[in-house]
Amino acid sequence: MTGRLFVIGTGPGNPDQMTPEARQAVEASREFFGYFPYIDRLNLRPDQIKVASDNREELNRAEAALRRAAEGVDVCVVSGGDPGVFAMAAAVCEAIDAGPDEWKRVDLTIVPGVTAMLAVAARIGAPLGHDFCAISLSDNLKPWEVIETRLRLVSGAGLVIALYNPISKARPWQLGRAFEILRETLPAATPVIFGRAAGRPDERMLVMPLGEAEAERADMATCVVIGSPATRVISRPGLPDLVYTPRFLEEPTR
Amino acid sequence: MTGRLFVIGTGPGNPDQMTPEARQAVEASREFFGYFPYIDRLNLRPDQIKVASDNREELNRAEAALRRAAEGVDVCVVSGGDPGVFAMAAAVCEAIDAGPDEWKRVDLTIVPGVTAMLAVAARIGAPLGHDFCAISLSDNLKPWEVIETRLRLVSGAGLVIALYNPISKARPWQLGRAFEILRETLPAATPVIFGRAAGRPDERMLVMPLGEAEAERADMATCVVIGSPATRVISRPGLPDLVYTPRFLEEPTR
Repeated sequence: MTGRLFVIGTGPGNPDQMTPEARQAVEASREFFGYFPYIDRLNLRPDQIKVASDNREELNRAEAALRRAAEGVDVCVVSGGDPGVFAMAAAVCEAIDAGPDEWKRVDLTIVPGVTAMLAVAARIGAPLGHDFCAISLSDNLKPWEVIETRLRLVSGAGLVIALYNPISKARPWQLGRAFEILRETLPAATPVIFGRAAGRPDERMLVMPLGEAEAERADMATCVVIGSPATRVISRPGLPDLVYTPRFLEEPTR
Repeated sequence: MTGRLFVIGTGPGNPDQMTPEARQAVEASREFFGYFPYIDRLNLRPDQIKVASDNREELNRAEAALRRAAEGVDVCVVSGGDPGVFAMAAAVCEAIDAGPDEWKRVDLTIVPGVTAMLAVAARIGAPLGHDFCAISLSDNLKPWEVIETRLRLVSGAGLVIALYNPISKARPWQLGRAFEILRETLPAATPVIFGRAAGRPDERMLVMPLGEAEAERADMATCVVIGSPATRVISRPGLPDLVYTPRFLEEPTR
């Protein structure tokens, strides 16, 4: 009889955007594995234990959690956003795939959450209202040439693009280069959304045309959404602009 | 002073996957616009009014809700899943864009939710753990040739593909044709997930290789997720298979 292993997402950071299902998984767990700023969102009880680890140590963290679950402890692996989008669920699966047989018998429950691009989209209108994609700009995880090829193909396909992990101290130039590539295929007027910390007190939403988009507007807490040629901006008197992508590819006759 | 207009997502159907933020928007609203099966998930109070409309009448429904909000009523537009993904948020933005100026002054709040592909992914492992896209297979909204081109480009780019609106009585052949196209670019062993009603009592998860994937396995409540060449399946003794896409494009040395 193994312990339970929950893999949850806290949502983007606003506690009201974390699902009751994730909350229940937290209540049922004894030990917590994850990046501390995410675990600190959970208001744990005194009998619940947080296990420290570095944000870059995802596979080690997954293995540590699986080891404890196999020993019979109920554990919770904590991601921000949704655990299945560039987060811990894949790391846990990788660890199970490569690990000892007993890890395959662990009672695993993955709990979905609101991922960053959905929270950003909701704050600005409906930029993901038509076909879209999510691409991590981290070239720690794949060769940079692959990222360039993907950006060319998806922008050429007319998909809206959500960029995760757009920039960091160790990866300072990649977002600027991504904008250069996208300017080759997309009109200069295409809206670019810098959605920082959506739903949190330090939220900052910024929209600028691709032709003027500057990588410095993003930081590690930003999800960058690049429109398609069909994406539109609505000016509203006394209210922020709305950005949306129509459901129909050609504008319907009105 | 306008009424408030909330656009919410109920999540995939399991009430524990609807966020507290969406629940609060429901409590604060007086009139509800949406497809009845979604509104029926909400357990409304006797003083709350549901306004009927057909599922295909999204723009009319958005206009009706905006009209009431402009008159001072607090209204709620209800989508399943996330309202920003192939759902009502874009329809509301379209109506604001084309409508009278007073609709631009309506106090609009879009509340994000758990969209179907995230719920399906969580039930099966982590198929969206690497770059992915979401494409609606409905050729009511765009020409079929555009869908074919997009499927070729994104599968060639190595993205995992989540197909929304894969099949209906009025669109019986499109999913089968999509599988044919994808077989031209992807290995026959690529896992295909038929994720039906994730998180609901009538949930049904099915995984089969692309070479054998049959469109009849899907219905209107299904989100179909097609892996990339990197997507893997883990067999577990006595437990369902896990499907995941590794975070690294090449497998890390172990």
